[in-house]
Amino acid sequence: MSSVWGERIKLTLFGESRGEAIGIVIDGLPAGESIDIEQCQAELARRAPGQCELSSARKEPDEVRIISGLYNGVTTGTPLCAIIENIDVVNEAQIPTIARPGHADYTAHVKYNGFADMRGGGHFSGRLTAPLVFAGSVARQILARKGVTISAKAVRIGNAETEQTMKDEILAAKADGDSVGGIVEVTATGVPAGLGAPFFSSIESTLAGLFFSIPAVKGVEFGGGFALAQMRGTQANDQMRMDGENVSFLSNNSGGILGGITSGAPITARIAFKPTPSVAKEQMSIDLATMQNAAVSTSGRNDPCVVFRAVPVVEACMAIATLDKWESK
Amino acid sequence: MSSVWGERIKLTLFGESRGEAIGIVIDGLPAGESIDIEQCQAELARRAPGQCELSSARKEPDEVRIISGLYNGVTTGTPLCAIIENIDVVNEAQIPTIARPGHADYTAHVKYNGFADMRGGGHFSGRLTAPLVFAGSVARQILARKGVTISAKAVRIGNAETEQTMKDEILAAKADGDSVGGIVEVTATGVPAGLGAPFFSSIESTLAGLFFSIPAVKGVEFGGGFALAQMRGTQANDQMRMDGENVSFLSNNSGGILGGITSGAPITARIAFKPTPSVAKEQMSIDLATMQNAAVSTSGRNDPCVVFRAVPVVEACMAIATLDKWESK
Amino acid sequence: MSSVWGERIKLTLFGESRGEAIGIVIDGLPAGESIDIEQCQAELARRAPGQCELSSARKEPDEVRIISGLYNGVTTGTPLCAIIENIDVVNEAQIPTIARPGHADYTAHVKYNGFADMRGGGHFSGRLTAPLVFAGSVARQILARKGVTISAKAVRIGNAETEQTMKDEILAAKADGDSVGGIVEVTATGVPAGLGAPFFSSIESTLAGLFFSIPAVKGVEFGGGFALAQMRGTQANDQMRMDGENVSFLSNNSGGILGGITSGAPITARIAFKPTPSVAKEQMSIDLATMQNAAVSTSGRNDPCVVFRAVPVVEACMAIATLDKWESK
Amino acid sequence: MSSVWGERIKLTLFGESRGEAIGIVIDGLPAGESIDIEQCQAELARRAPGQCELSSARKEPDEVRIISGLYNGVTTGTPLCAIIENIDVVNEAQIPTIARPGHADYTAHVKYNGFADMRGGGHFSGRLTAPLVFAGSVARQILARKGVTISAKAVRIGNAETEQTMKDEILAAKADGDSVGGIVEVTATGVPAGLGAPFFSSIESTLAGLFFSIPAVKGVEFGGGFALAQMRGTQANDQMRMDGENVSFLSNNSGGILGGITSGAPITARIAFKPTPSVAKEQMSIDLATMQNAAVSTSGRNDPCVVFRAVPVVEACMAIATLDKWESK
Repeated sequence: MSSVWGERIKLTLFGESRGEAIGIVIDGLPAGESIDIEQCQAELARRAPGQCELSSARKEPDEVRIISGLYNGVTTGTPLCAIIENIDVVNEAQIPTIARPGHADYTAHVKYNGFADMRGGGHFSGRLTAPLVFAGSVARQILARKGVTISAKAVRIGNAETEQTMKDEILAAKADGDSVGGIVEVTATGVPAGLGAPFFSSIESTLAGLFFSIPAVKGVEFGGGFALAQMRGTQANDQMRMDGENVSFLSNNSGGILGGITSGAPITARIAFKPTPSVAKEQMSIDLATMQNAAVSTSGRNDPCVVFRAVPVVEACMAIATLDKWESK
Repeated sequence: MSSVWGERIKLTLFGESRGEAIGIVIDGLPAGESIDIEQCQAELARRAPGQCELSSARKEPDEVRIISGLYNGVTTGTPLCAIIENIDVVNEAQIPTIARPGHADYTAHVKYNGFADMRGGGHFSGRLTAPLVFAGSVARQILARKGVTISAKAVRIGNAETEQTMKDEILAAKADGDSVGGIVEVTATGVPAGLGAPFFSSIESTLAGLFFSIPAVKGVEFGGGFALAQMRGTQANDQMRMDGENVSFLSNNSGGILGGITSGAPITARIAFKPTPSVAKEQMSIDLATMQNAAVSTSGRNDPCVVFRAVPVVEACMAIATLDKWESK
Repeated sequence: MSSVWGERIKLTLFGESRGEAIGIVIDGLPAGESIDIEQCQAELARRAPGQCELSSARKEPDEVRIISGLYNGVTTGTPLCAIIENIDVVNEAQIPTIARPGHADYTAHVKYNGFADMRGGGHFSGRLTAPLVFAGSVARQILARKGVTISAKAVRIGNAETEQTMKDEILAAKADGDSVGGIVEVTATGVPAGLGAPFFSSIESTLAGLFFSIPAVKGVEFGGGFALAQMRGTQANDQMRMDGENVSFLSNNSGGILGGITSGAPITARIAFKPTPSVAKEQMSIDLATMQNAAVSTSGRNDPCVVFRAVPVVEACMAIATLDKWESK
Repeated sequence: MSSVWGERIKLTLFGESRGEAIGIVIDGLPAGESIDIEQCQAELARRAPGQCELSSARKEPDEVRIISGLYNGVTTGTPLCAIIENIDVVNEAQIPTIARPGHADYTAHVKYNGFADMRGGGHFSGRLTAPLVFAGSVARQILARKGVTISAKAVRIGNAETEQTMKDEILAAKADGDSVGGIVEVTATGVPAGLGAPFFSSIESTLAGLFFSIPAVKGVEFGGGFALAQMRGTQANDQMRMDGENVSFLSNNSGGILGGITSGAPITARIAFKPTPSVAKEQMSIDLATMQNAAVSTSGRNDPCVVFRAVPVVEACMAIATLDKWESK
């Protein structure tokens, strides 16, 4: 029911894909932090479509307009609101009523009694991740001054794991009128030990809650993740020793998290994305206006794979959650 | 920072493994629901140790005492508090100061400045899942009247996937003074379409937040999960057709969730548990009192594998989250 | 630390008096509700300055731009964001550094380490009540269809209690280069019995939390309020009898609230406003840049009394809280 | 819907007047704070009935049992749960079905569909303030080490304002089979400037939300409060000057709060209590079982005035809210 997130750093996300604008309010930021908006735009450019043959042909300049919370480029401590106008809105003559398989068309129809503005996916659109990337860029600029570095990359597309084969996999799917999924790996280094909490506010719970907010994410694992299910304890446990005055770990199967609390080792996670549901091939579905069987194919401006574009979104979630925990100390 | 969870059904979890008692407050329950405490006890018995050679030899009768919120066996609508006394507390002469690898000893030490009561794992102990199982039993009794059925099972222990080989795997680990991890699969059927929300309150975000609250969980996936990363869209999408007046899906790769909202198909998830960190074999670590290198081995009353005991905990989380979303409609 | 409010209807307020724009996100609105934006504008006009000699000469057209959450004039169920551009922004050459007595200048300076954008009062400005009035208008349009009517009026300005003497009091204060306080009374009729909760989510707690969010409010009472402190129980208790099939009360000292829960009688509250802190007369203060004693007088565009303009703000808070409780049923 | 309160210090209140026990969980306490339980008991004794002829004859020893969160008398940082057993429970043969005017009987009946355990007022009983007093005592012990002192007193009972006349007023009401209301004034000194926030998390909003949680409270004002409505701005504004290196205020009409943020001046508030609704005189009401008119009188163990017993409850709320804001810095 809620588009509000967070304990100390609270996010409020709003907007629809073909509405006036999309945006976000970030509440709880510390005052006095310089934010370089050009750096935010550079992060947004990494997420934007229309960059190459691998992604959608849509042009979304995604220019951020700061509404509040920044004064002379420095956070004021009061809510920071930013919006991105929807300027490349194609004027749909009619909203399609056939639910696209794998999309939220049917479930949104039920939840909102048919009143949701689902043009272009509406509030469910991947476009809503742009404000998340903006918020993540603000968070990571603050974290950078604390020594935290966050970095993600695609590590698998379909069955491919190298940069070239991953691209080939996407082009092959595109050629088939199909799409393909993949996995993003993210790491945060420089996070001190002691952030987080047992149980409901654990680092894993908080991060997973954000990662699963990203459209198309269906799996999240930390450290060794699912592979730990096949390990023995002696193999899985990260042994410790003193490295001068610092505690160091001989391995990082915990992904930098023990008992829901950071250990000082890098936080690592892997996030699984399903294939873009929009495919050119015809699929069976239902017409929500008539509740009759119907067939549907989605052509046009869609991405055959969202994984590369999702990389900065995953980084953003890591940055936001880390800053939230930092401020909760 | 918080042991409070939920939107409508709020849980407050408290207690330490060797303290007076452990317990939970469940706020927001609908009034007028009959709760069979014997059924709650039966669920707790499934989680309790000391049942067989596969699990810990500790005796924890885990008898629930209802403090408030039930009157003549029926929910009053005001907060339901239940506690479980810690009666089998071994009187440790001294709290060990050597951090056990894979446990929260070190991270809790940093977070709480050495003041946490870590006897037996303290508030981080798996024992704290007993009140969760109680809360889950309350939730599932209410959900059962709405037609919802929740069921989980272990589907992998180490490299074993059948009942017999899974047990063998545990006994082999035990014989080696080691432990082993595994995977639990959970399904909720009968949940109607339309529960949940996009983004931060998505079904996946809410469920994952709870699942990752369970000690030792390091991975969560829904529907096809990580396997979806290797699929094409045409394969991953669950096509739809009308089945009389009902919408039905030809597959369930989405795990019953589209756009963060239930589709009416069964909700399915898989949860990865790491091996119990307590192992008899000696491991390298540090002494938190002196911050010097030290070696540690854990013998005695620990489980070589928590996966079987975790099954009712996973069911409990599914029940609690589902009821929370139901009440949030 | 938070500009986010609510259980089911969540408000996120943002903006500064002299920044780009001010606005609000309303999350949790039911889908399918027609909202008449002209009616919202009419409510905003009641709050706007520059209407007559009694209030500030500033021109703030306060035109609302809907960013999201409305489609064809109907709520979509996803977050409704609205912004109001700050178009009459006087270009201050310099931000004054002398803290104005009675304003937040000094406390904001301490809290935000001098980084808050305090031009025109910044985020603390009474101007931020405009988005609240917008949100209130949305809420009351939805409530009106449920039979709820909300109405407030000024009942005291200084020592005056009639419309004419209240206006005289304001003009007299203005002539003296001074300002004056007052009291607003608000009533909600048609609210059914059974909304609210004991303790922290009581109707009084929820409403008071919102009323005290309005700048300049220093007192809130419900029903008989402070006068109840001087009553006997037999006099204070509202006796009940059946009126056909309905329960009716012979008096309304409870203000329609018993045990934190609505009784079906009209909800009544009185809210005390302090005089506008901005006065033309010189007052002793400190210079925040030098932390030296200094004198200050505020001339120009300020209201000698905010009470009349606060009437729609009080109504808005009543509407928002009532809808939140309604949706929490 | 919620018995959970707070941003950083979260309270979960539970229990019914005639149930097993009442209690509270305090989450978010800093680790390493010594808590003197005898001091907590002394605070509880101030609230307990049966102390003198002015209050109820019931005996409630209110002995606190610490369930979790304290180890060797020091906070662990994990949730602190405390319960108080209900040992003086009179065995009511039957729950009365006639709603007592001024009590929550009728509104609770509607909200909980008749399922609430309303024996002795159930969860709505003033007895539930005992756990609040305990939590307040914990908070004030922590605050005392930071230099904060909190003190409240009754300043009016009916029309009486001196200690002797206030007592006389209560005895007169008692002799008449009636009850009487009053006002409690509370002050917190030593709170530094800069705590709190504008709008929804203002000091006033937070404190009022807690004060209105106390049964029988119908009015709350800060600083000059309602009297400010009759003042001019020049009179109401607290002028400032430097006192050595410190900012001082020449008056304290703001009650130590400007723009929702502490100013460093003492926080002051006045809280109005209605007369105890339980009176021996017969009053008109309805029978909730039959929904017919009925008459009711309440005799026996009730207080003719709760104001003196409410003094430590008011102090507790002030302490809890102040610590919450402190930890939110």
